[in-house]
Amino acid sequence: MVHAFGGAITAKRIQHRVNNKRLTAYVNGSFLPLDEAKIHIEDRGFQFADGVYEVIACLGGKFLDIKPHLKRLEHSCQAIQMKLPYPADRLESLIQQLYQKNPFEDAMIYMQITRGVAPRSHTINAPMKPSLVMTVRELPAPSEEKLADGASAITIRDFRWGRCDIKSIALLASVMGKQEAARHGVDESFWLDDDHHLLEGCATNVFAIIDGTLVTHPLDHQILGGIMRDMVLRTARSENIPVQERPWRLDEEHLSECMMSSTTNALLPVCHIDQKTIGHGKPGPVAKHLRTLMLKKLEAFRNS
Amino acid sequence: MVHAFGGAITAKRIQHRVNNKRLTAYVNGSFLPLDEAKIHIEDRGFQFADGVYEVIACLGGKFLDIKPHLKRLEHSCQAIQMKLPYPADRLESLIQQLYQKNPFEDAMIYMQITRGVAPRSHTINAPMKPSLVMTVRELPAPSEEKLADGASAITIRDFRWGRCDIKSIALLASVMGKQEAARHGVDESFWLDDDHHLLEGCATNVFAIIDGTLVTHPLDHQILGGIMRDMVLRTARSENIPVQERPWRLDEEHLSECMMSSTTNALLPVCHIDQKTIGHGKPGPVAKHLRTLMLKKLEAFRNS
Repeated sequence: MVHAFGGAITAKRIQHRVNNKRLTAYVNGSFLPLDEAKIHIEDRGFQFADGVYEVIACLGGKFLDIKPHLKRLEHSCQAIQMKLPYPADRLESLIQQLYQKNPFEDAMIYMQITRGVAPRSHTINAPMKPSLVMTVRELPAPSEEKLADGASAITIRDFRWGRCDIKSIALLASVMGKQEAARHGVDESFWLDDDHHLLEGCATNVFAIIDGTLVTHPLDHQILGGIMRDMVLRTARSENIPVQERPWRLDEEHLSECMMSSTTNALLPVCHIDQKTIGHGKPGPVAKHLRTLMLKKLEAFRNS
Repeated sequence: MVHAFGGAITAKRIQHRVNNKRLTAYVNGSFLPLDEAKIHIEDRGFQFADGVYEVIACLGGKFLDIKPHLKRLEHSCQAIQMKLPYPADRLESLIQQLYQKNPFEDAMIYMQITRGVAPRSHTINAPMKPSLVMTVRELPAPSEEKLADGASAITIRDFRWGRCDIKSIALLASVMGKQEAARHGVDESFWLDDDHHLLEGCATNVFAIIDGTLVTHPLDHQILGGIMRDMVLRTARSENIPVQERPWRLDEEHLSECMMSSTTNALLPVCHIDQKTIGHGKPGPVAKHLRTLMLKKLEAFRNS
């Protein structure tokens, strides 16, 4: 049995493996079968993308970086002048309750907060009760092939909105980016700014090794401050790998590796971007080293 | 009794005025009480803003410009590689059926198409059945005061995505723009490009009279091709008012009037923008003339 992140097999198993067809969801105070989980058509999340979300990994029953996730959720809410429906500790308890009804060994918790239900109007005419929706699914593992050969990507000129630091559900541009990736038979699309700097992917942060330094775009309105991005940077620093948060391009001299991070995949080497082979076209030494270290950390967390 | 656009009172009235509490909605093949109108939480419209919409005015039981609206809906669908759930003539028939259950004399029909329900993933992993949702509400009339004094607005640097020509439900930026307008006690926010050109409002197109010419931003990816925008231009041309579709700024010499158009308000003069008084601070002659002509057309359409 391989764990979600492709880590080592542990003896520890959770007994109650969940049948995908019997998933339980959470909707505004109720736990109910996923099939019956519905929201009103005038929920502003459905009509205006007026909401925010988080995806939290759960390893062996433990929620990874749950506090930074909930802190980011609060930041996203504040940025769109919306209130959390409950304080963070209550949210944490609800996540725990929902997970116990869907106790996958490795899971991802999806939580979405929207502004609430009101007759359709761009203007928020009255205070409303935010909607909270959560689901739990098994955390998928990357294929062995992907790990051996690395992922592939294309670049696309960024046409998203100017507040990508908000983890909002207004994700249509990212959906279109992913469609474009699928059309090219690759795993991800990386957004390029006007000066051809790589910002991030549709659902990942992206990094390069340039002259031995780990380089990634700095936190600004153009990228999301990924929780896993932060773990990558911390891991590199702890290994004395130099880190630079600065705009970077694919055509920089001495660029030898690329990689991308996400809650669902931790860190994956990226070996082909557009027509370009990165390094030798196989996962490079720094990406492999960082991934190994991160999986060790995650494994230690799982067994802690 | 004043009609929605503030036009003349007609003798013709529809008997079955609808109690707002007994609205009927349409959801994926079913007509049902609005209170019970729900969609699944994994509808991609709710989780990814993966959908498009239209708002169609209905005057005295007749749908205004329904064919251009449905054509634009098809354009929006194509732009995000989504199929219409039904051919246009079937959609038209469903709109008619829903209206008959909510027969306001003046109404607005809201219709939204989303890609469908699937386990959450940016990537579209399998073909799915699009969701179709529709509501009908009474068309609100602008206040007498607004008509006498003109509307007011602020300008905001555009931070929306790069495909505003698609009428998508990824509207969070526009919601934030409207919140900013409300915070300033004005009616609308107009988006400014990097060169301070006025593009459009959060839910309106915007026009100026500059040296006697009606000027508005040309159709490109930065604005929506408003159906009412088109009617404004046609009306002006039919009156031999010169029309220019070009980028324009608020500080241009000889700018004497501003106005904004929308399906719900037809055409409204805008007399204050930011700290600036436009013209003499009251609705100007061209805006009043165009509005009068448009209301006449709409009245004729209603009684046709």
